[in-house]
Amino acid sequence: MPTISIRGTEMPASPIRKLAPLADAAKQRGVHVFHLNIGQPDLPTPQVALDAIRNIDRTVLEYSPSQGFRSYREKLTGYYEKYNIHLKADDIIVTSGGSEAVLFAFLACLNPGDEIIVPEPAYANYMAFAISAGARIRSVTTTIDEGFALPKVEKFEELINERTRAILICNPNNPTGYLYTRREMNQIRDLVKKYDLFLFSDEVYREFIYTGSAYISACHLEGIEQNVVLIDSVSKRYSECGIRIGALITKNEEIRRAVMKFCQARLSPPLIGQIAAEASLDVEGEYMRDVYDEYVERRKCLIDGLNRILGVYSPIPMGAFYTVARLPVDDSDKFCAWCLSDFQYEGQTVFMAPASGFYTTPDAGRNEVRISYTLKKDDLMRALFILQKALEAYPGRVE
Amino acid sequence: MPTISIRGTEMPASPIRKLAPLADAAKQRGVHVFHLNIGQPDLPTPQVALDAIRNIDRTVLEYSPSQGFRSYREKLTGYYEKYNIHLKADDIIVTSGGSEAVLFAFLACLNPGDEIIVPEPAYANYMAFAISAGARIRSVTTTIDEGFALPKVEKFEELINERTRAILICNPNNPTGYLYTRREMNQIRDLVKKYDLFLFSDEVYREFIYTGSAYISACHLEGIEQNVVLIDSVSKRYSECGIRIGALITKNEEIRRAVMKFCQARLSPPLIGQIAAEASLDVEGEYMRDVYDEYVERRKCLIDGLNRILGVYSPIPMGAFYTVARLPVDDSDKFCAWCLSDFQYEGQTVFMAPASGFYTTPDAGRNEVRISYTLKKDDLMRALFILQKALEAYPGRVE
Repeated sequence: MPTISIRGTEMPASPIRKLAPLADAAKQRGVHVFHLNIGQPDLPTPQVALDAIRNIDRTVLEYSPSQGFRSYREKLTGYYEKYNIHLKADDIIVTSGGSEAVLFAFLACLNPGDEIIVPEPAYANYMAFAISAGARIRSVTTTIDEGFALPKVEKFEELINERTRAILICNPNNPTGYLYTRREMNQIRDLVKKYDLFLFSDEVYREFIYTGSAYISACHLEGIEQNVVLIDSVSKRYSECGIRIGALITKNEEIRRAVMKFCQARLSPPLIGQIAAEASLDVEGEYMRDVYDEYVERRKCLIDGLNRILGVYSPIPMGAFYTVARLPVDDSDKFCAWCLSDFQYEGQTVFMAPASGFYTTPDAGRNEVRISYTLKKDDLMRALFILQKALEAYPGRVE
Repeated sequence: MPTISIRGTEMPASPIRKLAPLADAAKQRGVHVFHLNIGQPDLPTPQVALDAIRNIDRTVLEYSPSQGFRSYREKLTGYYEKYNIHLKADDIIVTSGGSEAVLFAFLACLNPGDEIIVPEPAYANYMAFAISAGARIRSVTTTIDEGFALPKVEKFEELINERTRAILICNPNNPTGYLYTRREMNQIRDLVKKYDLFLFSDEVYREFIYTGSAYISACHLEGIEQNVVLIDSVSKRYSECGIRIGALITKNEEIRRAVMKFCQARLSPPLIGQIAAEASLDVEGEYMRDVYDEYVERRKCLIDGLNRILGVYSPIPMGAFYTVARLPVDDSDKFCAWCLSDFQYEGQTVFMAPASGFYTTPDAGRNEVRISYTLKKDDLMRALFILQKALEAYPGRVE
């Protein structure tokens, strides 16, 4: 039998996926598992999107344009305008989820061996797309003690060499919920300019900023317009993760031309997803406010609850719907697995994502977990109680 | 401004795409363009699929499993059973179109620099996916004079070296409509076995075999079960190109494990597309027979018509809905462009795909075009008449 590729073997399996069989086994034993591990909002998809799908009157579900429907891209420019991001429809390429946008940005911009600087902890799948493109992620570590703020510019510059081609940020951040300040964004802008790098900016959580702080998009940064590639997705903002509609946005025509070749090879983004995404742009302000208010409450409930548990610490996340919390445990990989395989309290347990999967630095985040607040408040409160009981019972507890 | 990647620059733009602006300009001038260039069937999507979409009763369009819905994969095993392909649901990974299946097969199985042998003319996008994976396509040329039959085994062996890792076939073939015989499939099997290669087999046109000849799937070949990766898609068989649902199928668990990591990174295949694809498996035999009968008639109409035009020759394609025809022209790239930019007859013209884009050998197929028969018979007949007029008027005509 022929052997598979280096990529196929080196590709990391997500730490959440590794635990999934344990969660399944727990459910088989009749244990109720609170899913604090996932980024799938439980909130309803906007009715306008569901109606658009139900009212499809096409008789042939044919290819859509490789760049995505023009009507959708034109309407999107109005959406971005509200965030003071000025685009033309041609600046926007519709992709199969934000995932494909990241992959195509890497394939079009990076040569094998090129390096991307990414503040960690970071969304684990960036690593997978980097491996797909043969690129290498170099991490700048942010720490829970500093609330996951960006380290000083020197920490970036230490990593910059002749193979460095890009900086990748996620803002608001998955997994930390951190929101970059104006000062931090300017710092990134200056680095990008000084070293002539690409700036890949994943901003799929822009709707979820809770502190009144300004949202500074990479597209707001002056003087690096040709360097910025914005990664976007409708998944989170409209609770439409399943329709697989994202976008790659750049004012750099050369990048767009290269990306379009990859888009043409895969023919087209999902047709029905685009119809739903386009309809979602008409969503009522009330829907977005309700969603926002719900997350504000859940966030308060989760963060207050976490910080009340002895030995647990969570910074206050400014955006998205995750936090990275520190637990009084020897090893959060072991603890999260133990919660699923060896623990239950009144027939219930919790499924959290060990933070190790979000770091590339060995042993970083060893006592941290990512907890998402995509559960209803009552469930969150119960899950916090179960977590507290688990920490009390865990044999690897440390003070 | 940073420079884009080698891949971004080397990626070939499809020859059809290059001509698309000319077709748009012709339409702007009020010229009617017969699209003989595309693989998008005009036939209706099955009603059961459309109904399934219209009747969606979900309130959250959430992620589906990375491997695809189990219910769909289980039902698919019954579909393959009818073709004497014996699968378990776990052998099947649902992808975003056949395109993603090809890309993931390459990424999981091939290292950068590895070589894949592909009989040409071949589907142009294989090249794009090879470039994405850093792999190299080596072509075995088939010729119109031999009806695009596979060349002798020696032609393959001439190309095999220590970097050769796979053979890729498309059967029935796009662009030629050729169907591999039992003898040819056995020849491929023996090569795969002797040199321990992967066999990637794209069989998305299996419903469209018109000669009564047996369909020999790569999955029917004995002794290479662990080497075969089947590429599939619902696009053509149900006229559902837009929903982006394909499959990567293999009995090789190690390949599946590697492919699944790429699948997990992109989270999930399209949700609504899967619902439509699953419903399509219930399509009535009558629908499939009507589609089949329609293509049989169109094929006869097209091939008879082509061979009646002075200087034109088309072999009789055994499957799919394309043929590669030889025209009495100096250069089909020029001729196809000329048809769109400089020619019209009674306000009409034809858009064909120059065959050069399907060959990697320089100058191969220089006087060939791919013509698809996804138009209604009346339109096909008119398009043939326009083609004849164009050939009469073309300044670069050769005898």
